[in-house]
Amino acid sequence: MKIGIYGYGNLGRGVEYAASQNPDVEPVGVFTRRDPASVETALGTPVYSANDVLKFKDVIDVMIICGGSATDLPKMTPAIAQNFSAVDSFDTHPKIPEHFAAVDKAAKEAGTLALISAGWDPGMFSLNRLYSTSILPDGENYTFWGRGVSQGHSDAVRRIEGVVDARQYTVPREEALEAVRGGENPVLTTREKHTRECFVVAEEGADLARIENEIKTMPDYFADYDTTVKFISAEEMKRDHSELPHGGFVIRSGKTGANGAHRHTIEYKLTLDSNPEFTSGVLVAAARAVYRMKNRGDVGCITLFDVAPRDLSPLSPKEQRAAML
Amino acid sequence: MKIGIYGYGNLGRGVEYAASQNPDVEPVGVFTRRDPASVETALGTPVYSANDVLKFKDVIDVMIICGGSATDLPKMTPAIAQNFSAVDSFDTHPKIPEHFAAVDKAAKEAGTLALISAGWDPGMFSLNRLYSTSILPDGENYTFWGRGVSQGHSDAVRRIEGVVDARQYTVPREEALEAVRGGENPVLTTREKHTRECFVVAEEGADLARIENEIKTMPDYFADYDTTVKFISAEEMKRDHSELPHGGFVIRSGKTGANGAHRHTIEYKLTLDSNPEFTSGVLVAAARAVYRMKNRGDVGCITLFDVAPRDLSPLSPKEQRAAML
Repeated sequence: MKIGIYGYGNLGRGVEYAASQNPDVEPVGVFTRRDPASVETALGTPVYSANDVLKFKDVIDVMIICGGSATDLPKMTPAIAQNFSAVDSFDTHPKIPEHFAAVDKAAKEAGTLALISAGWDPGMFSLNRLYSTSILPDGENYTFWGRGVSQGHSDAVRRIEGVVDARQYTVPREEALEAVRGGENPVLTTREKHTRECFVVAEEGADLARIENEIKTMPDYFADYDTTVKFISAEEMKRDHSELPHGGFVIRSGKTGANGAHRHTIEYKLTLDSNPEFTSGVLVAAARAVYRMKNRGDVGCITLFDVAPRDLSPLSPKEQRAAML
Repeated sequence: MKIGIYGYGNLGRGVEYAASQNPDVEPVGVFTRRDPASVETALGTPVYSANDVLKFKDVIDVMIICGGSATDLPKMTPAIAQNFSAVDSFDTHPKIPEHFAAVDKAAKEAGTLALISAGWDPGMFSLNRLYSTSILPDGENYTFWGRGVSQGHSDAVRRIEGVVDARQYTVPREEALEAVRGGENPVLTTREKHTRECFVVAEEGADLARIENEIKTMPDYFADYDTTVKFISAEEMKRDHSELPHGGFVIRSGKTGANGAHRHTIEYKLTLDSNPEFTSGVLVAAARAVYRMKNRGDVGCITLFDVAPRDLSPLSPKEQRAAML
């Protein structure tokens, strides 16, 4: 199975590494909007201009689109789906129905198959919400994120005047997790579920009290949370905060039996050293499923909800049953 | 969707309760090998003799077979599949390929669809092993069971001379769990993963030392474990050990990126007050998928690996994407 990697940031590089762990997956090219000569790939995958992508129409089985959800993917995925079967990691939850419709239209017109919103949330977390809700209908779902770096919140802090660099960690509150695990089905406010920790490098002589106040009162991003701000040096930032760890929890708590007397808790927990590299692993497995489903005649837009787990694995169904069932 | 419940022990009763939580599922009858007049159902589902099951061939969409894996299901499921689409919870792992082949043959000849080995292990645990291995190919899987009642081990203790009643709990070792969670990919012996706790009611005047020794040295069941034995009264057994809790963990620990520098841990944890009632929830969701897939023309034997998660949920795909993706 031949894949293309469309875009080469942290995610594109992660896909290149993930492909190297899957012997059935061959990356034939990285496609970039930058000057191809300026891009060096980690494992030597050839680099081409995004303008030349149509030359690979008959070569590439599945294009893995490694752009950002805010501005890239809403345009890129429908455009790519006009010529390629594809996978993306679109993660702006409220805009998924709109993105799905646009990709579905393009893919159906072109006779391609495109899987959107692969990754961990949306992605593996979504699958767990769906499975758990289907098997325990009388219950509640809880999703917690972290401890991990939120790039959107880090960017928001960086835009404040006097800030040179910033890293924001989302942290689930242990007492909220424990209440959910205990089967109490608590109603939790935003503030009760997570705290936010900011590490900030400020310009020399900047008004630190003003920066801290601007962060803590920023609507949407921080005002609804208990936020801590710590000023550090550029050296400390580089030494202690250069990675992109993340993770979180999906927990469903439900009742069964006579008068709901029996309680059950399903907990799915991710602890990830590298958010983009883990997401890349999901993208490559999803590309395998798209390849197989396209060969069986499926077209249009799908998500991981539509994929039989069998199709994500390189093993044969018989091997899967013998080894993993 | 109309279901039949074939067999009415803890599991059959659990299916009846689970159906009551799913408005799209209507149980039309319980089928028993006992005298139907002797069986009273928890929620009033009519009881029929198993001998009369063929009268319901055109009424029942999916038969949920609630027999035991040791002797019932290897015969029952292929026999039922000759006339009904069906679901079972066959859980003898090493015999799954053989059971699959027998059910597949019967179902293909009859044009029915049968899903085997639904439940939590095999079942939800299997799904997690398959998903996690597909997205983190370079890693190790670990499965821990408990704390919970193993009915097979409880039965083994009950067969010892002088034992009136027994309950055996399988307990995962916290230090083994922590080593796995830490991403160390440890090699663990049977003894290092779990301990076993036995609660035993002995006959008056029985030789307790002999019973304890027979338990602890029993091959296959206890000899490879650190086992504790506690003698209790019949009243204590009834008061403290009348439920069937269970659960456990599937953990995959894997590496990605340059030189495998980034570690990731995926942990799926179940904490269940009632093993049979949770299993029943999986069986009913699986029956929904069988109903839909059969209507689309699928026949033969399948497992949860072959089911797109979409088909387990009563929600429409659009509702699923909006609410859970």
